[in-house]
Amino acid sequence: MSTRVSFVGAGPGDPELITVKGLCRLRAADVILHDCSVSTALLGEARPGAEILGAGLSHAELLDRMLERARRGARVVRLNDGDPTLFGRLGEEILALRAAALDFEIVSGVTAATAAAALAEVSLTDGHRMATVVLATGTDDDGRRPAGLDWDGLARADGTLVFYMAVQGLSAITAALMGLGRDPRESAVIIERAGREGQRVLAGRLCDVVTLARDARVGSPAVLLVGPTVSVPAVPARARATLVDAGARPGVRAV
Amino acid sequence: MSTRVSFVGAGPGDPELITVKGLCRLRAADVILHDCSVSTALLGEARPGAEILGAGLSHAELLDRMLERARRGARVVRLNDGDPTLFGRLGEEILALRAAALDFEIVSGVTAATAAAALAEVSLTDGHRMATVVLATGTDDDGRRPAGLDWDGLARADGTLVFYMAVQGLSAITAALMGLGRDPRESAVIIERAGREGQRVLAGRLCDVVTLARDARVGSPAVLLVGPTVSVPAVPARARATLVDAGARPGVRAV
Repeated sequence: MSTRVSFVGAGPGDPELITVKGLCRLRAADVILHDCSVSTALLGEARPGAEILGAGLSHAELLDRMLERARRGARVVRLNDGDPTLFGRLGEEILALRAAALDFEIVSGVTAATAAAALAEVSLTDGHRMATVVLATGTDDDGRRPAGLDWDGLARADGTLVFYMAVQGLSAITAALMGLGRDPRESAVIIERAGREGQRVLAGRLCDVVTLARDARVGSPAVLLVGPTVSVPAVPARARATLVDAGARPGVRAV
Repeated sequence: MSTRVSFVGAGPGDPELITVKGLCRLRAADVILHDCSVSTALLGEARPGAEILGAGLSHAELLDRMLERARRGARVVRLNDGDPTLFGRLGEEILALRAAALDFEIVSGVTAATAAAALAEVSLTDGHRMATVVLATGTDDDGRRPAGLDWDGLARADGTLVFYMAVQGLSAITAALMGLGRDPRESAVIIERAGREGQRVLAGRLCDVVTLARDARVGSPAVLLVGPTVSVPAVPARARATLVDAGARPGVRAV
């Protein structure tokens, strides 16, 4: 049985942050089923004549197309934002493929947490200490503080916290963490559109990051980093992209 | 100021899991300073005449070479296992570069957690639920249960736990988690040498994964996944590599 479906992590946005193997699969695909936010530059790597699907499809429709095309023997690439194993619907899609006795592989991608840290030029762990990093969903379907998360545990965790899709829930997240005992002066950094056009880094503290984000009109997608190792120098190492509407506010910088 | 030092994530072992940008930096480098476990195939991508350093150097010596070569104007690549922002010494290295007013960039890589999940063909999160994933160091310098971790928090966490470098501390980790209330029948998967020659997946439960690992003589590096979404089917989807010395034991499979 040859591999019919390749789940490929597109990485965080910058098309050059796909893996060599992922790009190879993408270029060889007969059919590409992509998350809507995947970069158009990556989709431009498809071979002429490849079928590209994603925009406007429900997840059920996308899964249906995946099974149908794979059954016909097409080389299918399921192109996910970031990495397929994190915060996607890989579990369901694998179940459906197994039920249909269709073969697949998973080609890893760079996930937003590490891409955001790279852009902010911070380490998520401290080399001298035993460490944990918690990756969490930052927004539920209603844009509120995700009810299913263990906020007590997150407030007590001594390592770095990374919230994906953190814009809508930002105020609720920071309020919950501070309300349950996390130090309001702890470093908090928002990385907006990491790896994409217009990417920005806003560095503040747990107590002021909501104001920073509101004043700078931060939009989705954005990642929030909170923790002891994510302190960002106020002076930019370089100016790589658009300067944030910073005014005289310290701690806001552009990359 | 042009970029003098590029921190590049080599990914989990498979040389094709480096990013396109990372490979580009590697091929253009005058000097490559690598972690010892980085694949020789990747080092083979260096241009003729590039200086390759890493083996046999202490971290202090490596840092010293990095600063000296960058000051001379060389294009330096610091090639890290996995991703530079996780479980490495990026924090110290950045501080030294900033102190020397040397410019740098960070090119993300695929981290072992997601590469291990890909190989085991499991998702680290469930698409239907709000989710957390905890990334943790699995072994301290003495090979014991890492004293600095919040074991209470890890035992209570309702998402997936990922322990890097989990072989030496395996018995202590599983004992601590079960002792503090984690369900002994929860799925536990060890992924040995993910992305490298001889890679293996051993799927069991928190209560028997130590025995599985001992019987299969699992060595470093290996990642341990524990959690509700990491249940691996006993029947392999494919046979990709060496079959584990499985005998009739259910739940052990090779990829």
